[in-house]
Amino acid sequence: MMKKAKKNINAAILIIGNEILSGRTQDLNVSFISNWLNINCGISVLEVRIIPDIEKKIIFNVLDLSKKFNYVFTTGGIGPTHDDITALSISRALKVRYGYNEDAFTILESFYGKKNFNKARKKMAKMPAGVKLINNPSSAAPGFKIKNILCLPGVPSILKSMMPNLKKYLTKGLLVNSKTISIMTVESRVAEYLDKLQKKYKKKIEIGSYPFFRLGRVGVSVVLRSTDQTIIKKCEVEFLKIIKINKINRYTT
Amino acid sequence: MMKKAKKNINAAILIIGNEILSGRTQDLNVSFISNWLNINCGISVLEVRIIPDIEKKIIFNVLDLSKKFNYVFTTGGIGPTHDDITALSISRALKVRYGYNEDAFTILESFYGKKNFNKARKKMAKMPAGVKLINNPSSAAPGFKIKNILCLPGVPSILKSMMPNLKKYLTKGLLVNSKTISIMTVESRVAEYLDKLQKKYKKKIEIGSYPFFRLGRVGVSVVLRSTDQTIIKKCEVEFLKIIKINKINRYTT
Repeated sequence: MMKKAKKNINAAILIIGNEILSGRTQDLNVSFISNWLNINCGISVLEVRIIPDIEKKIIFNVLDLSKKFNYVFTTGGIGPTHDDITALSISRALKVRYGYNEDAFTILESFYGKKNFNKARKKMAKMPAGVKLINNPSSAAPGFKIKNILCLPGVPSILKSMMPNLKKYLTKGLLVNSKTISIMTVESRVAEYLDKLQKKYKKKIEIGSYPFFRLGRVGVSVVLRSTDQTIIKKCEVEFLKIIKINKINRYTT
Repeated sequence: MMKKAKKNINAAILIIGNEILSGRTQDLNVSFISNWLNINCGISVLEVRIIPDIEKKIIFNVLDLSKKFNYVFTTGGIGPTHDDITALSISRALKVRYGYNEDAFTILESFYGKKNFNKARKKMAKMPAGVKLINNPSSAAPGFKIKNILCLPGVPSILKSMMPNLKKYLTKGLLVNSKTISIMTVESRVAEYLDKLQKKYKKKIEIGSYPFFRLGRVGVSVVLRSTDQTIIKKCEVEFLKIIKINKINRYTT
């Protein structure tokens, strides 16, 4: 069961993997985790770091982010190969024993069968002492939670399948609602109005402005974000009046 | 002209933008910049951070990364709207004056025409004092370089068009070559061999192992990365022997 606590809850994501840094692999986990956390748990991701598979970098960043944010989600480095060093590094960061987790061992042994449960596969049952497991319905090898750190694999499809299983470990925060108004103009034509609106609403709402190019047409998506739906509605009405007065069309597909 | 200096040169990328953190927009700049820098300049990206449009966060991270790495590439926040605060924040971080850059002002005025050169558009000519401009062939508004910090826009197509124009500001490092060998097996069958190979070659080569799922088939991409082509070739030959002995097939499309 998810605990309820109606306040702002934040998180950081730590992507561990040389393949993302080198540009070989396009990261897809940041946008998925961030959207999922906001919609399902009312948790806002406020920082992301991408770092290489280097123990001292993992230790530094896990400790730094776990101090600064309510939760840290790591991705990558929990597989069977030599470059998978996330579990070991986190054990060292938290100064807890690194060894077989009994439950993870049982899950993996039954998944692979005793005969095929080789050293590399057993490695995936090695974790920091005292973790809670995050079940993996795709490929058995569990993720884990220790303190406010939640460790997930790097493969997007496997990660996605595990997210519902970590919900029980999270305290629910306030959902950030958003409203996007796409218009057929350039940013510099509406910048002045957006600035005035943002100053009027101050910190109650966050107004973002993002140019786009779709099918040869240029436009701007104005995004209103707030935990308060009423304020979004009020700001939206005001903005729609402004674009009407200025004869700016809305974007329609 | 690019300066030559045959040693390792590294960089960090700082992605500035609420829309990436919230998951609304999928980042595409990290993989592009990272690949481009390695191939064209022999520069390796060793850390990426994604942060919100908040002045004190920009100041902290720009200063922190510019101390730790040879170059810092920022993306986002140099447009005409109220949420574009990168140039102002960097001026404050470096304690230099923030105001109109004459050359940028001229470029933008001629692009928009005197009549249409409104306040929002003029804002894009405001930069820290003492910058060098990065020409923008797509939408005129220049990026800039100050100290070891290079500031680029967030829109991927515009950013891509500007990369060739910053090459002249960079010192060339050693290119990291890579060789990918994709095989039809699972990681846990080759983990032991990869571990031995990595231990044998120590820091001369970086061996990465990445599972993939393509058209219903499961495989592993083994990536060998090194500044030394001869070592990559040697390691590749050795690995190909291993998979032959173990009757593991190579992946062919």
